[in-house]
Amino acid sequence: MASAYFSDLLASIADRGRTLLGLAEAEQDPARRAATLVDLCEQLLSGRGEASGAALAREVLERYATLNEGARQQFFMALARQFGPDNAKLAASVAAYVKDGSEARAADLHFDAEARRQELFRRLNRAPGGTAALVKLREDILAAATGQPALKAVDRDFSHLLSSWFNRGFLVLRRIDWSSPAIVLEKIIRYEAVHEIHDWDDLRRRIDPVDRRCYAFFHPALTDEPLIFVEVALTEEIPAAVQPLLAPERKPVRLMDARTAVFYSISNCQQGLAGVSFGNFLIKQVVEELRRELPRLETFVTLSPVPGFLRWVESEGKKLLSPEDQAQLGFLADDNWVKDEPARAALRPVIESLAAYYLLEARSSNGRARDPVARFHLGNGARLERINWLGDFSRKGLKESAGIMVNYLYDLGDIEKNHEAYANQAILATSSVVRRMLRSSNRIRPPVSNGAAPAEKSTLANP
Amino acid sequence: MASAYFSDLLASIADRGRTLLGLAEAEQDPARRAATLVDLCEQLLSGRGEASGAALAREVLERYATLNEGARQQFFMALARQFGPDNAKLAASVAAYVKDGSEARAADLHFDAEARRQELFRRLNRAPGGTAALVKLREDILAAATGQPALKAVDRDFSHLLSSWFNRGFLVLRRIDWSSPAIVLEKIIRYEAVHEIHDWDDLRRRIDPVDRRCYAFFHPALTDEPLIFVEVALTEEIPAAVQPLLAPERKPVRLMDARTAVFYSISNCQQGLAGVSFGNFLIKQVVEELRRELPRLETFVTLSPVPGFLRWVESEGKKLLSPEDQAQLGFLADDNWVKDEPARAALRPVIESLAAYYLLEARSSNGRARDPVARFHLGNGARLERINWLGDFSRKGLKESAGIMVNYLYDLGDIEKNHEAYANQAILATSSVVRRMLRSSNRIRPPVSNGAAPAEKSTLANP
Amino acid sequence: MASAYFSDLLASIADRGRTLLGLAEAEQDPARRAATLVDLCEQLLSGRGEASGAALAREVLERYATLNEGARQQFFMALARQFGPDNAKLAASVAAYVKDGSEARAADLHFDAEARRQELFRRLNRAPGGTAALVKLREDILAAATGQPALKAVDRDFSHLLSSWFNRGFLVLRRIDWSSPAIVLEKIIRYEAVHEIHDWDDLRRRIDPVDRRCYAFFHPALTDEPLIFVEVALTEEIPAAVQPLLAPERKPVRLMDARTAVFYSISNCQQGLAGVSFGNFLIKQVVEELRRELPRLETFVTLSPVPGFLRWVESEGKKLLSPEDQAQLGFLADDNWVKDEPARAALRPVIESLAAYYLLEARSSNGRARDPVARFHLGNGARLERINWLGDFSRKGLKESAGIMVNYLYDLGDIEKNHEAYANQAILATSSVVRRMLRSSNRIRPPVSNGAAPAEKSTLANP
Amino acid sequence: MASAYFSDLLASIADRGRTLLGLAEAEQDPARRAATLVDLCEQLLSGRGEASGAALAREVLERYATLNEGARQQFFMALARQFGPDNAKLAASVAAYVKDGSEARAADLHFDAEARRQELFRRLNRAPGGTAALVKLREDILAAATGQPALKAVDRDFSHLLSSWFNRGFLVLRRIDWSSPAIVLEKIIRYEAVHEIHDWDDLRRRIDPVDRRCYAFFHPALTDEPLIFVEVALTEEIPAAVQPLLAPERKPVRLMDARTAVFYSISNCQQGLAGVSFGNFLIKQVVEELRRELPRLETFVTLSPVPGFLRWVESEGKKLLSPEDQAQLGFLADDNWVKDEPARAALRPVIESLAAYYLLEARSSNGRARDPVARFHLGNGARLERINWLGDFSRKGLKESAGIMVNYLYDLGDIEKNHEAYANQAILATSSVVRRMLRSSNRIRPPVSNGAAPAEKSTLANP
Repeated sequence: MASAYFSDLLASIADRGRTLLGLAEAEQDPARRAATLVDLCEQLLSGRGEASGAALAREVLERYATLNEGARQQFFMALARQFGPDNAKLAASVAAYVKDGSEARAADLHFDAEARRQELFRRLNRAPGGTAALVKLREDILAAATGQPALKAVDRDFSHLLSSWFNRGFLVLRRIDWSSPAIVLEKIIRYEAVHEIHDWDDLRRRIDPVDRRCYAFFHPALTDEPLIFVEVALTEEIPAAVQPLLAPERKPVRLMDARTAVFYSISNCQQGLAGVSFGNFLIKQVVEELRRELPRLETFVTLSPVPGFLRWVESEGKKLLSPEDQAQLGFLADDNWVKDEPARAALRPVIESLAAYYLLEARSSNGRARDPVARFHLGNGARLERINWLGDFSRKGLKESAGIMVNYLYDLGDIEKNHEAYANQAILATSSVVRRMLRSSNRIRPPVSNGAAPAEKSTLANP
Repeated sequence: MASAYFSDLLASIADRGRTLLGLAEAEQDPARRAATLVDLCEQLLSGRGEASGAALAREVLERYATLNEGARQQFFMALARQFGPDNAKLAASVAAYVKDGSEARAADLHFDAEARRQELFRRLNRAPGGTAALVKLREDILAAATGQPALKAVDRDFSHLLSSWFNRGFLVLRRIDWSSPAIVLEKIIRYEAVHEIHDWDDLRRRIDPVDRRCYAFFHPALTDEPLIFVEVALTEEIPAAVQPLLAPERKPVRLMDARTAVFYSISNCQQGLAGVSFGNFLIKQVVEELRRELPRLETFVTLSPVPGFLRWVESEGKKLLSPEDQAQLGFLADDNWVKDEPARAALRPVIESLAAYYLLEARSSNGRARDPVARFHLGNGARLERINWLGDFSRKGLKESAGIMVNYLYDLGDIEKNHEAYANQAILATSSVVRRMLRSSNRIRPPVSNGAAPAEKSTLANP
Repeated sequence: MASAYFSDLLASIADRGRTLLGLAEAEQDPARRAATLVDLCEQLLSGRGEASGAALAREVLERYATLNEGARQQFFMALARQFGPDNAKLAASVAAYVKDGSEARAADLHFDAEARRQELFRRLNRAPGGTAALVKLREDILAAATGQPALKAVDRDFSHLLSSWFNRGFLVLRRIDWSSPAIVLEKIIRYEAVHEIHDWDDLRRRIDPVDRRCYAFFHPALTDEPLIFVEVALTEEIPAAVQPLLAPERKPVRLMDARTAVFYSISNCQQGLAGVSFGNFLIKQVVEELRRELPRLETFVTLSPVPGFLRWVESEGKKLLSPEDQAQLGFLADDNWVKDEPARAALRPVIESLAAYYLLEARSSNGRARDPVARFHLGNGARLERINWLGDFSRKGLKESAGIMVNYLYDLGDIEKNHEAYANQAILATSSVVRRMLRSSNRIRPPVSNGAAPAEKSTLANP
Repeated sequence: MASAYFSDLLASIADRGRTLLGLAEAEQDPARRAATLVDLCEQLLSGRGEASGAALAREVLERYATLNEGARQQFFMALARQFGPDNAKLAASVAAYVKDGSEARAADLHFDAEARRQELFRRLNRAPGGTAALVKLREDILAAATGQPALKAVDRDFSHLLSSWFNRGFLVLRRIDWSSPAIVLEKIIRYEAVHEIHDWDDLRRRIDPVDRRCYAFFHPALTDEPLIFVEVALTEEIPAAVQPLLAPERKPVRLMDARTAVFYSISNCQQGLAGVSFGNFLIKQVVEELRRELPRLETFVTLSPVPGFLRWVESEGKKLLSPEDQAQLGFLADDNWVKDEPARAALRPVIESLAAYYLLEARSSNGRARDPVARFHLGNGARLERINWLGDFSRKGLKESAGIMVNYLYDLGDIEKNHEAYANQAILATSSVVRRMLRSSNRIRPPVSNGAAPAEKSTLANP
């Protein structure tokens, strides 16, 4: 309801801008409009804000929605400059802490150093539809912050608050299917980020067949807005390629035959919640949900892209190859190499070796996996289970990863152990198949600068 | 669901204490049990906590529920001592701030001074039923904090977090009626704090008749737990006494005849949310709700107790009376004075004068009303509309306030103005009737120490 | 909503009687008021009824609700006399059928012989709250029909229509628990017909503990009105007595230990639906529901009263006893025999023998069991599993059945077979224990009039 | 749920046909398969049917779904031949009635003449998803009945039963909007029968904008299946053409400006419910709904096609014209006449005159309007308000009615009066504008056979 209210509000805002606020004002210069808004924000933080209930908060949000680009920038800068901590109070608090260093003073410091905009955001949230409006506001600030270091602090406060409000304990898991409201389904189409959903028929193929599932997290204050969703295929075996999974004419697997749940797409929906992490919780709860509903399921696995692979090959990977192997990479230049049998035969051993090396050995400076998807699943405690040649022969798949896809396995019994080994010792959980793929290949000549062979230390066996 | 889960959990906890944790451990000394729990809390804050999803949080909350009194105290003290801010980081942050005093350093200070228990509480909230368990935990800490100043800081962090989570924007207003679930209704019976509900028949008389309403705020994470509720009677006129409103045999007012909505009872439900204020928002939203549903309503008014009145008369008020009037107060000693016509006649002018003075003139040092109920409604921007002789002739009413009750009027158009006059200039909004009651009486001789007659300055007219 | 509307309507009907219909009319003689109503019914059946939508139907029901006793009787008689079949049409239809005897004429006959009140009832159902009002109307007619044979035909039409409308396919099974609306729960208290529910605490003990269940059928048009409900206890073993099941201080059985579901009370709620049978379907669906939720349940059994037992003993049974045994029955005269050890010892063998004979051998002329509860469960295909001495030592239990209770077993695999043996051959499904109880007793001397020993033929073994 | 169950069932039926029933049987000849089904139906009507609960009903419906065309036909004929009334009982009942002619015998006749298939259908309804399956079954019978007079009686029984079950009192009005489940919305797209909905974007334009409404009747046993729906546009004035209403780029009307609700499309959804009329009730309830929500609405009107117009012009109407006017009709031969200014100018007076005559004067033998849409709305008590030249210039609109559309006005105060005048005296309610349009035209020369000028008697003024 709040949400319906707010979209109504946004829709009618142009009109209201004229009637409510007066035509003259609507044509004011941005500076004056931002200043008016800042003034209202100050009032909202004052006693008047207390008494007004939600009315003042609503007015602030309505006015914000009518700001043009320039006024918006000025408003953001005011959030950074005028709504930081109360400096006098902070200085006094620091002095008191420096003087006696007690726990009580330390505790005061935290509260005395709080930026006033945090309370401002909390009060804005009182407006009907406030939460949705704040998520949108943060999206705007995030976009504006790129060239504006002063806005980073605003975003830090915002991000902190939203992390607290969107705590996993407040999220509700809902299954998305063909009985879901169209207003939610259209967002699934729009937000799908991994394998595009082309239209409503395509959507239906993803959520309606008996062997398909889709789950999303929702927040009670954002009724019709999924925060993150995952698409699941139930299969007999671990799949090696995504196109057969999505083929329009495929025959559904009968539930009694399904042994494997495949997480083949996971998408975040809200730009304004960037940095608030839901994916880890989502996957784990969906695993529990599916195990309860379908006790015959034995394997929970992803079918994941390797989005950074070819970029890494270009910038670093290819240097590790022999000149002959480097030459083979030339086949990739032809957009149609995948239909060319000799090209495929030549590329496969080189690409597979590079992929294994990229996923297992090419770490960032802090020992984390280079590939963002790998980093996410390995950080969740999953195991790198299989590397699939020609797992995704869509244009995008070929371009990003020469068609390579990866299965990450979620074995609930090993998740904590895997996570700790990765977090504390930079050890990647991998299957023996993947380790063998790396070892058996002698094509990659790792950089000799650091003596220890990282392959030895980092990819210990999973029993 | 989460809530159902948690009550299940609590119900089965004695058993689980024995089976899950081992009988031996259950008989351990409190110190060891608290230490184990503290250790789990540390793990929850570590990387392992990240990977475990909600499992570790759940284990902490389950174990906490099995602690005996002694172990609980030790755990609370650990929250105070071990889960404050990271001192080294804080010291460094203070030093950096002292050195350059920049906004960026100030912002760092806030985050670096945050007590680690805040993150602990946030992670505990991930458990199923976590929010309910945390509200209960805070209730326990609050109870324990009375003699333990060290726990005040813990409670301050807790209170801050809960204020943010129970932001008005997340609350849902629900009407409570005879179609509400019994699990909610039994709590209305239990939590009613103003005019006791004796049994289910009594409850039904409060919520089922066509001229009665009850509304409560709920939080989505606490499904069956009202946070605060208000009981409303629809009447033709502003009522002067509560007993007729609650009489079992009364005849309901027809909706077409109702012109007045009377808020005759408002009760907070959750000890663990003490200090998080809902009442202001609740009254204002209920006013809006009723106006939408019943456009014929013209007046929104309370019928409120004056809980501090006779206590103040005893300690201060009676000294302001002439000896003759003081003597009349002697009638109050007889529990049955209300049935004694001469006693009533003698008491009425004295009590009314004292009540008007108490409500209008007897301020606390910061200019606020002395009576807590008056403070709440006047702080909300309501107007002191009428003082009612024999408004509540129950034992409790006679004992607390010699039967006086008060109507506070909520006129949405004046609320902000009233609030500001009160907040900034300590001016109470009052009706002319009440002002006249004060002035016409020459019985009260105010203390002469401060020259200005407070009656002149503080009770300006409402036009 | 319809239902809420209608109770509102009923509540305000006295007023409306005066305002809407005119005071004069409200004081009219019953004959004129009934005539007005009959006239409106005729209009409702005419074209005007078509055009008016639900308005005319609503007016008829509102007026009916204001009739006094006399007018009501006259209205019922008009339903019998004026709203039977269209006689001219019927005569013509019979003539046509007699002439050619074709299937087409036979089909016409059915429709031409339909009483006009059937269409009247169908049109009345269009009013908001119409279904509830019609169920109430039939309740009134049923009560009035006792001494009025002319009303039997009205009731037959009504009953036929309600059977069709309350077809099992339209009923919804809902679990009743402590989260159910109070408006439903109060009806559970009111309608419980087997073991009285004394108050809300008693109710809660029946529906809230983890080892208790209550299910009811609802019809979509009667939102808050259960039609029939059954109370279930989950136990380890088949219980032999009801008082321990209902003891306030009993300890709940853990779900993991429950192997048996005990149907210990089943109550019809709507007098106006007398003759429409729900019980058979309710028990079978609850069995399916429980098996799905709790796969460990192995046994589904009732704990049932034997309401006709002592009445039968008095009128017929005692004559079958030896003089010595007859004398023992004298102990029953003392209301406190159950506390008297020698009385119990003397009575037990006699009562058990009589009970076994009563349940197995004392049939009605068509071979059905004499006891109504036995008839219901055996007709459903259940098996007479056990006869329990002192199964119900409440006053009611002692008075009706000398404390005897019975377990009927529902074994879904045998239900159809048992039913057919009972329906076609008058064979009762019984356990070997019960058969042995009957045989081992030589106390009963069956009437010798009919040669065949009925015990031999009617209680064949269940394997 | 029932409905979900049933679609699941249908989806898996091919498989089940093989596994459950045996491959051999699936290949049996149709006669044997129909015979097996008939045998099961007989069992369902017997005592076994009572005991089996819903299992046997479910088996019958599952088997029916696997029948091929031939077996289906044989099954239908068995319904006609074997499941008519019990002939012996009927003959005896007729004899008894002929003998004494009493009311009691007449009442017996109705029940004794009931075809056994009625009880069969009622018992089939007990199966999960039974109601949906029966509606489908009737759809099949209806289709098969065209050339089979024997099936008419089966359909008559079916239709009678469904009319009773789908009584308006059991229907639920639900608003359809962008928050409705996709499974419902796809049916709106599919069932729209007046102005085709091309895709999901088109659908959204019909239900999502603030000035659009869509309402449907649902039956509780058919969760996701609308029975009938109406699309409404909120406008300032009564619209004269449909294309502007549906234009993708149109600007929504603000709710505060809307004075008129336009019912521009009403579609039945279930072939199996043909003959059960919902439209009358739907329109009237939607009028009430809209008046409650939007008290500013003053006018409730349709924008309706005239589907039989040009067909009538061709067969009868053109003969009533002068030769010159007949010649003008030649312009219609050109599909693009509507873009041809002279053609439009020549056609308009002729077409308008014919349309007025067609709608007002061209009656069927029983005095009803010839046009089916006119018959529906006038029968509901609406008034013929306006005839719109070029109201629908789609291909379909031009082909059916030369682009003519009609507004029928629903004035709740006049509905009963209009209906009665139409039903009893064949008087059409018309606006003065329409009457004038007819009179002012002297182009039509009515057939002279009957002396009375029908225009005089049938189109009396609406005041």
